[in-house]
Amino acid sequence: MNRQTYTIAVVPGDGIGKEITPVAQEVMEKATEGMAGFKYVDFDLGAERYLRDGAVLPDEELERIKQTDAILLGAIGDPRIHAGVLERGLLLKLRFGLDQYVNLRPCKLYKGVESPLKNPGDIDFVVVREGTEGLYCGAGGAIRKDTPDEVATEVSVNTAYGVERVVRYAYELAMKRRRHITLVHKKNVLINAGDMWQRIVDRVGQEYPEVSHDYQHIDAATIFMVTDPGRFDVVLTDNLFGDILTDEAGSVVGGVGYSASGCINASGKYPSMFEPIHGSAPDIAGKGIANPTAAVLSAAMLLRNLGLDEPAVLIENAVEADIEQNASRRRSTADVGRDILGRL
Amino acid sequence: MNRQTYTIAVVPGDGIGKEITPVAQEVMEKATEGMAGFKYVDFDLGAERYLRDGAVLPDEELERIKQTDAILLGAIGDPRIHAGVLERGLLLKLRFGLDQYVNLRPCKLYKGVESPLKNPGDIDFVVVREGTEGLYCGAGGAIRKDTPDEVATEVSVNTAYGVERVVRYAYELAMKRRRHITLVHKKNVLINAGDMWQRIVDRVGQEYPEVSHDYQHIDAATIFMVTDPGRFDVVLTDNLFGDILTDEAGSVVGGVGYSASGCINASGKYPSMFEPIHGSAPDIAGKGIANPTAAVLSAAMLLRNLGLDEPAVLIENAVEADIEQNASRRRSTADVGRDILGRL
Ligand SMILES: CC(C)[C@H](C(=O)O)[C@@H](O)C(=O)O
Ligand SMILES: CC(C)[C@H](C(=O)O)[C@@H](O)C(=O)O
Repeated sequence: MNRQTYTIAVVPGDGIGKEITPVAQEVMEKATEGMAGFKYVDFDLGAERYLRDGAVLPDEELERIKQTDAILLGAIGDPRIHAGVLERGLLLKLRFGLDQYVNLRPCKLYKGVESPLKNPGDIDFVVVREGTEGLYCGAGGAIRKDTPDEVATEVSVNTAYGVERVVRYAYELAMKRRRHITLVHKKNVLINAGDMWQRIVDRVGQEYPEVSHDYQHIDAATIFMVTDPGRFDVVLTDNLFGDILTDEAGSVVGGVGYSASGCINASGKYPSMFEPIHGSAPDIAGKGIANPTAAVLSAAMLLRNLGLDEPAVLIENAVEADIEQNASRRRSTADVGRDILGRL
Repeated sequence: MNRQTYTIAVVPGDGIGKEITPVAQEVMEKATEGMAGFKYVDFDLGAERYLRDGAVLPDEELERIKQTDAILLGAIGDPRIHAGVLERGLLLKLRFGLDQYVNLRPCKLYKGVESPLKNPGDIDFVVVREGTEGLYCGAGGAIRKDTPDEVATEVSVNTAYGVERVVRYAYELAMKRRRHITLVHKKNVLINAGDMWQRIVDRVGQEYPEVSHDYQHIDAATIFMVTDPGRFDVVLTDNLFGDILTDEAGSVVGGVGYSASGCINASGKYPSMFEPIHGSAPDIAGKGIANPTAAVLSAAMLLRNLGLDEPAVLIENAVEADIEQNASRRRSTADVGRDILGRL
């Protein structure tokens, strides 16, 4: 058996990112023993680096990241730093610079986890969030800043090229699942972008007659997420709506602590990136109590992205069993890691 | 006693709007008996009018609406009509044309109503949603439509003028409540608009040392709305985030069927408009089973806006008592109306 070695860029980032990422790496290692090897390249990026030398993500480092096979990211964000500096300059620079146009966010209510909902039902869907367009593209500005006549704009840029490729991804995914797509937008107000999304979904959908699709306004979708989340299979949406909906979904399945995500360049041109959807949680950082489950599940997504399906499934099953048995217990980061490792 | 007469523009609109609006009018009438009189001017606007003669909201009719003291609106939207035509051309044309810059949306969990949450706690907050700016301003477009090279944009326009006036409204409101404001935005990504909102809240806040304020990203806010909605008092946010958050909030307090809203021109230059936050619900329209509670509560908001606080409180108390006793029963639109009237 040819034991392949992959180069993984590791960006632990800020806050609890530093605590959960090593756990995810350990689990990856163990699950792939004898099957694959990893060469980790650590990137010191995030708040501390920025405070130390002012660098957020130098182009040269982005170029080095481009040479890797995949990226494992912890969390980015620090209250000491003005909002947007790290998010735009690091996290979004990665997503955009590596053209990670599919932001894949599975949402599942695991057995043993308590949902805040009275009747959650079976929740198991995937949000396919566009990752390189929309309001996230940074095309905005301000004039007359700090005066009573200030005007600030934010521009959502949407292209048929960018929408069609993520729509196709969603249809392919739906074919492997329950064959239903829900497009979420706000086409009754954002008539230009919404109309384009709808037309492209309708058109591509003709190539997938087995997949049904419907549409919900984002406001209505936030209602169904609370009243009937079981109705969703593949949720397809733009960058901002996907951000909002997946955090709400995370809370509905018992907390974003269980929610992994992949920022995927599905063309394979650049490496894809895997990260928990939760943030750096400065309030609990440094205490050794952060739950590494979402980071571990992100590592499983990373493996699957490299074609290592078997160890990915191994990890997912171990996590699922661990959650079912222990979700109600208070455990340290290390304990959760040890428990998951013990099941591999 | 000087019995004043007010002119009310009535726009029942589409679907269940036609069924619930007359109930709201009846309740208004009864609650103000001997205190005030109303001259109703009906406006035939919405899907049927549009299908009949192609008119959405002719300028001449908007001018006539401007002459009234307040507007009572049912619901707008019809699946037969391309998304956006009625929403932009009628509902938003009213909100923008009448400069209704405060979109006020109280969210309360009434006794007797079952929340979908296991532990909802005491929920009683108000969302102050900006109503005349942001992504709703209609500044977008598309080029190369229907080709693989299509580009569609949506522009969020935000002005210090527009933000400051709604921020001031929120602070005044907070002074009458529990004195806490939560600004909701996405300032880590929408850095231009978000930064301006934050600066204006900080600056105006200095004039209200009794009012504390904090900040949440919209994605985090959707989490707290599910895990701890009791923490909110006054939620201050932009047009799109307010739309999304109030629908989620509506579901958390047991369904948007209890959620009223006011589109308020707080300068008094043009009339304000009062409407349920739910839509036209085509699936149940015409069956006489729509719950008129949100419309009745909208009428109470309308009365308060005219300075008729006493009948407004009367209606709110009647509704509250009615809900407590009957929320779990299935009642027709007429029955709910009768029950509320019976308590006045
Ligand atoms: C940190 C922030 C820029 C990011 C986003 O908005 O995409 C986060 O909320 C997420 O969902 O990954
Ligand atoms: C119908 C639609 C244009 C409207 C909005 O988005 O404001 C509605 O959802 C609301 O919340 O009043």
